[in-house]
Amino acid sequence: MTSRILQNYVSGGWYTAPSGLSPVVSALDGTEVAQIGSGGLDFGAMAAYARTTGGPALRALTFHERAKILRGLADAIIARKEELYTLSAHTGATRTDSWIDIEGGAATLFTYASKGRRELPNARILVDGPVEGLSKRGSFVGQHVYTSLQGVAVHINAFNFPVWGMLEKLGPTLLAGVPAIVKPASASAYVTEQCVRIMLETGLLPKGALQLITGSTGDLLDHLTGQDVVSFTGSAATAQKLQNHPVIARESVRFVAERDSLNATLLGPDATPETPEFDLFVKEIVREMTVKAGQKCTAIRRAFVPSELIDAVQEALCARLAKVVVGDPAQEGVTMGALISTAQLRDVRETIAQLAEDARIVFGDPNTPPPGTNANGAFISPVLLRCDAPWTAKNVHEREAFGAVSTLMPYTDLNDAIALCQRGAGSLVMSLFTHDPEVAVTVVEGAASFHGRVLINDRDCAKESTGHGSPLPALVHGGPGRAGGGEEMGGIRGVKHYMQRTALQGSPGTLSAITNRWMNGAPVVEAGVHPFRRTFAELALGESFTSGQRVITLDDIEHFAHFTGDTFYAHMDEAAAAANPFFPGRVAHGYLILSFAAGLFVDPAPGPVLANYGLENLRFIKPVSPGDAIKVRLTAKAKNQRNAEYGEVTWDALVTNQDGDTVATYDLLTMNAL
Amino acid sequence: MTSRILQNYVSGGWYTAPSGLSPVVSALDGTEVAQIGSGGLDFGAMAAYARTTGGPALRALTFHERAKILRGLADAIIARKEELYTLSAHTGATRTDSWIDIEGGAATLFTYASKGRRELPNARILVDGPVEGLSKRGSFVGQHVYTSLQGVAVHINAFNFPVWGMLEKLGPTLLAGVPAIVKPASASAYVTEQCVRIMLETGLLPKGALQLITGSTGDLLDHLTGQDVVSFTGSAATAQKLQNHPVIARESVRFVAERDSLNATLLGPDATPETPEFDLFVKEIVREMTVKAGQKCTAIRRAFVPSELIDAVQEALCARLAKVVVGDPAQEGVTMGALISTAQLRDVRETIAQLAEDARIVFGDPNTPPPGTNANGAFISPVLLRCDAPWTAKNVHEREAFGAVSTLMPYTDLNDAIALCQRGAGSLVMSLFTHDPEVAVTVVEGAASFHGRVLINDRDCAKESTGHGSPLPALVHGGPGRAGGGEEMGGIRGVKHYMQRTALQGSPGTLSAITNRWMNGAPVVEAGVHPFRRTFAELALGESFTSGQRVITLDDIEHFAHFTGDTFYAHMDEAAAAANPFFPGRVAHGYLILSFAAGLFVDPAPGPVLANYGLENLRFIKPVSPGDAIKVRLTAKAKNQRNAEYGEVTWDALVTNQDGDTVATYDLLTMNAL
Repeated sequence: MTSRILQNYVSGGWYTAPSGLSPVVSALDGTEVAQIGSGGLDFGAMAAYARTTGGPALRALTFHERAKILRGLADAIIARKEELYTLSAHTGATRTDSWIDIEGGAATLFTYASKGRRELPNARILVDGPVEGLSKRGSFVGQHVYTSLQGVAVHINAFNFPVWGMLEKLGPTLLAGVPAIVKPASASAYVTEQCVRIMLETGLLPKGALQLITGSTGDLLDHLTGQDVVSFTGSAATAQKLQNHPVIARESVRFVAERDSLNATLLGPDATPETPEFDLFVKEIVREMTVKAGQKCTAIRRAFVPSELIDAVQEALCARLAKVVVGDPAQEGVTMGALISTAQLRDVRETIAQLAEDARIVFGDPNTPPPGTNANGAFISPVLLRCDAPWTAKNVHEREAFGAVSTLMPYTDLNDAIALCQRGAGSLVMSLFTHDPEVAVTVVEGAASFHGRVLINDRDCAKESTGHGSPLPALVHGGPGRAGGGEEMGGIRGVKHYMQRTALQGSPGTLSAITNRWMNGAPVVEAGVHPFRRTFAELALGESFTSGQRVITLDDIEHFAHFTGDTFYAHMDEAAAAANPFFPGRVAHGYLILSFAAGLFVDPAPGPVLANYGLENLRFIKPVSPGDAIKVRLTAKAKNQRNAEYGEVTWDALVTNQDGDTVATYDLLTMNAL
Repeated sequence: MTSRILQNYVSGGWYTAPSGLSPVVSALDGTEVAQIGSGGLDFGAMAAYARTTGGPALRALTFHERAKILRGLADAIIARKEELYTLSAHTGATRTDSWIDIEGGAATLFTYASKGRRELPNARILVDGPVEGLSKRGSFVGQHVYTSLQGVAVHINAFNFPVWGMLEKLGPTLLAGVPAIVKPASASAYVTEQCVRIMLETGLLPKGALQLITGSTGDLLDHLTGQDVVSFTGSAATAQKLQNHPVIARESVRFVAERDSLNATLLGPDATPETPEFDLFVKEIVREMTVKAGQKCTAIRRAFVPSELIDAVQEALCARLAKVVVGDPAQEGVTMGALISTAQLRDVRETIAQLAEDARIVFGDPNTPPPGTNANGAFISPVLLRCDAPWTAKNVHEREAFGAVSTLMPYTDLNDAIALCQRGAGSLVMSLFTHDPEVAVTVVEGAASFHGRVLINDRDCAKESTGHGSPLPALVHGGPGRAGGGEEMGGIRGVKHYMQRTALQGSPGTLSAITNRWMNGAPVVEAGVHPFRRTFAELALGESFTSGQRVITLDDIEHFAHFTGDTFYAHMDEAAAAANPFFPGRVAHGYLILSFAAGLFVDPAPGPVLANYGLENLRFIKPVSPGDAIKVRLTAKAKNQRNAEYGEVTWDALVTNQDGDTVATYDLLTMNAL
């Protein structure tokens, strides 16, 4: 392809650096595909533009409105995906590798769009946890909320997933209402730049929500504040350098790091060559070595097997690796592409040499280009090492060859295996192949705190398993220790990394007004009309209805018992009921109380309330004895518009008896017409 | 009091440093009260002892067992509190100041004991969020869990709350199953050392769960790993130094900082001198200036008032401050004690001089000891400054005099006030005095992301308000930016800072075994006996009961309607029901389905199931039309032992129709005999 100068997207316009450009070359043949640079940019002004223009525009939108933008961006990427596939080929990726990056990236945006709609309210503030009672009489309460940070998120991404790597950060960030400045890795920045163009050309993004720096980030970090976030994916060395930038500690800038780690996989002691788990294990290692030519932060670097099986595993691995065809993915039959660059190739070869101090190569020659590959490309054979003394070894637990490289090691028993896994000092993911739940329990209890994700694969889930190396938008991605200590995605968890949690304290009335959730003690509005007669739009939080009383007789209880078949002794047998520690004698059924309560509050004729679609948090607090009288108070507690026709209303339901004691509490959920 | 050498509690024994001791003096008269030192300690061995001895012992306990230990520790502190009050007097604290520290500290442990029992399971693993479906057929699912970090928590505390400051960190840490090494600030370490003795002498703490360093922490940080946590409270300068320690970034050591910040308070534009909020505002500022002689990380440093009210506020403040009596708290009538030391006094005086570059002193003379105070003590008058040009001022927004010092400033309108608050660049807490909910909404939307806590005080909650300066165990304590970016407490949230969140992936059966929660798709056990006949101890997760079918007739629906009074048209009027977008025509009541389901699964005779005390997550998925037949499947999903007699059982309830379609799902909660 013709080389072109990549642009930066800055303060609302495309900008080409006038000088100081660096070349970016194709992984396949070393020819120049682009030039990059960010000389002349005012990085402080970029950050300020994001904060003053992008932030307010995003914060003015609700979570649902932001989710809609994400969906539009994902649609555009899918519609124009072939533009990205074409560019991606120059990174050495196979079509499958690019699919993970491009369509996997769009899928991540789709997931955030969907989770934003389903799991977040159509609002700007996110309530966290229940109301906390802070006083005896209830006039002073607490409520945690999340609000959008008023800063900018700086995303510094790795070369291996130029699309997905950007989008897995951008989805949660934009959903949180925070603008981003994206800095892709140089080696594949031409793919990212095109994806940014596709997103900007939708016209969906508010001004200032997204900026792009294709060259160096200059003095950008010097301009950061405690409202900003730096999210980094890449090497441990760069992560440390960034984290130790003096501004990070001085301003308490949030720093989220995702570092390449020495992810391990473990063959359970139950998984002998006769079991399906043995084959699954072998296939997974080969898959992790070859996808993206092993350039994945989640790839398997260390494989632990029962010592008596190491020869069998090695044999099976070598047999499978022998079928791998390395080359230009455009050629028929090629199953593994190139590393990103010849610089990366050198680095991988050097690290393999270090690993070989602890281990011996049992498959592949790292220093001979695979047959038929372009000598100017960055091709390498998959390389399997074997280390028979993992406790005296050092490099295999500390050095990562970021390519198609794994090391096979023996363990003596499960505790030995767990301890060996821990020598990686923290990783993004470990996997375990076992069909024995006890093995799974032991490994998770012993090792989970060292990993951000633990995959337990077996014959029951293998067909549908997404695999060791795949971060999923619904699950956290990140890990402790060597993996950087950060967390991304995990569904809505990842959104909260770009928001500030604040404990609000005050009167229930004030906190209700702020959170848009009525709470106990807040003003109750008797609107003079049954609130079920109010449309979603008309209904105000705090609008309330208090029913008349209804006495529950012994006849009612007996009748209900025989009608429903619920003849539990607590309702039917005075002596037996009185012997139950929770009941004074025969009591009304909980479901009878619920049913009578509905009879007391329902408004029969058609109106805005279309359906009662569920209940939450139902607790029966005090038993109802024959002769007791109940009444119910319903108060509009929360509203959440779903679409142009309907909205959900949550009603606080309080059932009390003739003494004013609480009998039952619950949240009633209705679907209301707008 | 007689000076003594404070000891270190190290690897299971008390240790006195042989040399290199430093004196600690009384705040009241400058006489030596203790000597401290940690010379000769092997800090790496301390960390290892915590990890290898304390960690496993704590992790072997359930959350409930750890909670019980916390309760015992709190009981012991209360029983021996006078020992602590006696020592605390030398820190310059009044009885009220010491009460906040000592009894407030014990109360924090009690809260964690209680929350541990009520809000955490009687288990070692904490499940986080729902099961995540990751596959079409449901054979591969995800579940986030928290497990205890396998490292040590290093707590580096501030001088101002030698008891509370230790306990607010220790409660969540021990509840998380993580051992701690506590390093109190030198100036008040004698109070902390005694409190540690009291706790150790209960014999409740497992070996290695708690160690104490009274002197310097030497090279302790050099020995930390990614499983460890450093929790720091104190100055920004020390926090930055610790955070930039190379091991923190290299090993991704968790670092939680709580830095002193320039907390602001704001008088709402509605709060004129005639309103209660005006008086509340004045009282709160004086209280925050004088409690602990203003040595609180949460104290009010900047007070913003409508410009037209600044004279009135100043006058009211000065009148109240004139009534403050500074001196030895042992003397009758004294209302404010001393600063911690003469070094602190010098520091406060220097900072006041810096503030005076922007502002003028309108109350108090910082350089003249208050009348009648000991010249060798660390006494200072409260000092109020006034800065009329807050936008050109710099020091008032950046420098903190950590003593009885506040600065009063005017604002023009609410946006100006919010922007001025933000000039503090992040704080632990801000407060707002308003009785106008719109003012509260505007301030929270504009300012919340800069603060860890926002208190909105008004006439409705003032009587029960715990005040601007009081962190509460149920609410997060910490804040962004200048406040350090950390979070502590917040109920169970604070426990999670000492645990690792991990995404588990696998088959439902495997994940059920690990989490001790049955999930959809996991093996179902038909035990051959109704599971309601099984005691809590006998019942295995996955034990299931599938009922017979019951046809719901139109007669049933009509009968239920008239019996309960729930004659909603969707049940009674075919034409009206069919016009409803969610119903095909007349349908059964949701409560009728629930009631019949209970009739189908209930086992009438007395047995281990004592009561159905509630429901969660009820959703009506598909309407039931007359003539449809329903059945219900109950499966034991989770068990949680409450005490020696009872345990809670959560049952997965699935109601289906004759076509196998899901009609309703819910979690049924029962209390079972052990």
